[in-house]
Amino acid sequence: MSETKAPWVTYRPELQVLDCTIRDGGLMNNHKFDPELVKAVYQTCVEAGIDAMEIGYKGDKKLFSTDDFGPFKFSDEEEIRKIVGDNDTDLKLAVMADAEKCDYKKDILPKSDSVLDIIRVATYLHQIPIAVDMIHDAHEKGYEVYCNIMAVSTASEPELDQALEVIAQTPCSTVVVVDSFGALYREQIDYLVKKYQGFATGKEIGIHAHNNQQLAFANTIEAIILGCNRIDATMMGLGRGAGNCPMELLIGFLRNPKFHERPIYKLLQDYFVDLRKEMEWGPTIPYAIGGLLNQHPRAAMACRADEENKDKYVEFYDKCTSET
Amino acid sequence: MSETKAPWVTYRPELQVLDCTIRDGGLMNNHKFDPELVKAVYQTCVEAGIDAMEIGYKGDKKLFSTDDFGPFKFSDEEEIRKIVGDNDTDLKLAVMADAEKCDYKKDILPKSDSVLDIIRVATYLHQIPIAVDMIHDAHEKGYEVYCNIMAVSTASEPELDQALEVIAQTPCSTVVVVDSFGALYREQIDYLVKKYQGFATGKEIGIHAHNNQQLAFANTIEAIILGCNRIDATMMGLGRGAGNCPMELLIGFLRNPKFHERPIYKLLQDYFVDLRKEMEWGPTIPYAIGGLLNQHPRAAMACRADEENKDKYVEFYDKCTSET
Repeated sequence: MSETKAPWVTYRPELQVLDCTIRDGGLMNNHKFDPELVKAVYQTCVEAGIDAMEIGYKGDKKLFSTDDFGPFKFSDEEEIRKIVGDNDTDLKLAVMADAEKCDYKKDILPKSDSVLDIIRVATYLHQIPIAVDMIHDAHEKGYEVYCNIMAVSTASEPELDQALEVIAQTPCSTVVVVDSFGALYREQIDYLVKKYQGFATGKEIGIHAHNNQQLAFANTIEAIILGCNRIDATMMGLGRGAGNCPMELLIGFLRNPKFHERPIYKLLQDYFVDLRKEMEWGPTIPYAIGGLLNQHPRAAMACRADEENKDKYVEFYDKCTSET
Repeated sequence: MSETKAPWVTYRPELQVLDCTIRDGGLMNNHKFDPELVKAVYQTCVEAGIDAMEIGYKGDKKLFSTDDFGPFKFSDEEEIRKIVGDNDTDLKLAVMADAEKCDYKKDILPKSDSVLDIIRVATYLHQIPIAVDMIHDAHEKGYEVYCNIMAVSTASEPELDQALEVIAQTPCSTVVVVDSFGALYREQIDYLVKKYQGFATGKEIGIHAHNNQQLAFANTIEAIILGCNRIDATMMGLGRGAGNCPMELLIGFLRNPKFHERPIYKLLQDYFVDLRKEMEWGPTIPYAIGGLLNQHPRAAMACRADEENKDKYVEFYDKCTSET
C-alpha cells in the first residue's frame, strides 16, 4: 500500500518540546516558587527527554521590585545556576524577554557568560520594532532566538502580515503562534500556522496554547499535524489562568522514544498535587467565557481570586459581554 | 472572493445537539440525582435551544435492582413524566437502551404511549445482531432510532466494517462514533468519521466523546468540521469518569442563533457548583493515563474513589502498563 493509513503511529525526529512551567506558571504567584520545585521540574525535564526548559523572565528591575517578585521574574545568572549548576545535560535552557519590560542590552549577558541557550522574545504587534532589535541583540550575543507574537487572536490581518514579513528578515530561528487568550479554534490554528509558514520560510514555527476552552492540547496536536516543530507545554498544564497544554498529555501523544512520561507522573504526584492546594489554575467557567469572547484572562483571574463570587458565572458573563 | 476564508463564522442549520448529562452522568452516582436537578437540566435544555435530551437508560429490572439504582436507570414512563409532563416543548426526549441490558420488547412502549422521541441503541461489536433487532423493534414502535457503537477505539477493522455494513441496512437515522475510553486523537476521529460516512450513506453521523485526554470538545469540533450533525454534550462535562464534551463550550462554539449559552451558565452556577462538591468527574491524571492506554475507565474510577491513593499516579501508571 502506498498511502500511509495511520501516520500518527510514527514521529518526526526534528520535533522539540519546550517546558515553560516555571515561566508561565510564575504569572500565577509572582514567580514565588519554592526552589526545590523549580529544581524538580528541571530534573524531570532532563529525565523525560524534553528538549528545552524556560525558567523565567528577564524582567527589568527598574520596572519590577525584587520585593514583589520571586527570582525568576528576573532570572539572574546566579539564580539560574542555583538550580541547574552548569547544566551539564542535553536540556537547553531558555528565558523570556518581554518587549518594553526587559533591559536586554544590559541584562542579557553574552552567551559565553551564561548557562542559557535560548532567548524567547515576547512581543505584541505594536512593539515589533523593539522586538526586532531584541532579536538582533540576542542573536549577536550568541543565542538561539525565538519570537513569540502574543495575543494573535486579536491581531488585524494587515498588521500581522506586516509583522511576520519583518520578523522573517531577522535571525530568529523560530516564530511562535501564541494563543494568549485561549480563544482559537482548530480552523483558526490552521489558518495562522499556514500563514506563519508562508511568511517565515526557513524558520521553525512554534505553538503556545492556552487552555481556556480545553483546547490547548488539541490545538497543539493540530499545529503538530501541520508541521510545527517547536512545541510549548507545562507540567499539569500549570500556567496563567486556564493554563497551557499539559506536558503529560503531550508526551503521551508523541511517539519519539526519547520522551518518557513516567518521570512526569512522578513530579505531578510529588509536587503538583500539593501545589494545587495552594494555588488555582486550569480551565474553569470564567476562563471559558473569556476565551469564547477573546478577552485577556485578567478579568477571569480576578473573578477566580474572589472567593465570594468565583462561581457567579452569569454575572461574570453579563459583565464581560456588557464591556464588549 | 470565491474561497471561503473563515467558514467557522457561519453555521449548519441541520446540526442538532443532544444533552446526555443525566444519562451519562448517572453512571457516576447510580442514577441517584435529585429530581429538582433533572428538572433544571430539562428546563435549561429547552431555554438553551438544545435539540434533544437523553434522560436515562431503559435498564432491565430483572438485571438491576431499584434499591441500588435511581429512577433513570430504568426511565419508566411515569418517572419521565414527573420531570417533563407532556413535554410541550420543541425539545426531543431520548433514552439509551443497552444491548443485553434492556428488555426492549416489553419496556419500550409504543411511541403513541410515550413522551419519548428517540431510542438510542448502545452496543458493543459482539452484540450487533441484538442491536439490529432492537433498532427494528424501536423503529416499528414509531421512534427515531440511533445506533451507538461503543468503545470503537478497541475495534478491529474488519469487525467494525462488517458491523457498519449491517447497521447501514437498518432503519436507524443516525450512527454515532463513540469514544468510550477517551482514547482517540484528532486523526483517528477523522479516520472513523470518514469510515462511518462511507458505510452509512443517507444516515446522519453522530459523535460522543469522552474527556480523558482533554480532547472531548476538540474531537467534537473535528467531527463537526467533517460533517457530523448529531452532537452529544453534557452540562459542565458531567459524565462517566473524565466526563464528556462540555455543553457550555460546545454552545459557545456553535454559531446557530437558536442556541443560547446564558441559561447554561445559570444552571452550572445554581446546581453544578454544589454537585461538584458531592461527586467528582472530569479529566484528572488517572483518566489521562487510561485514555492514553486505551483502557476502560473503570480502573481510573476506582483509583479516584480511593481517597488514600487517588493521586498516586506512578503506581497507577505502573499497574495499568503491567496489565497490558
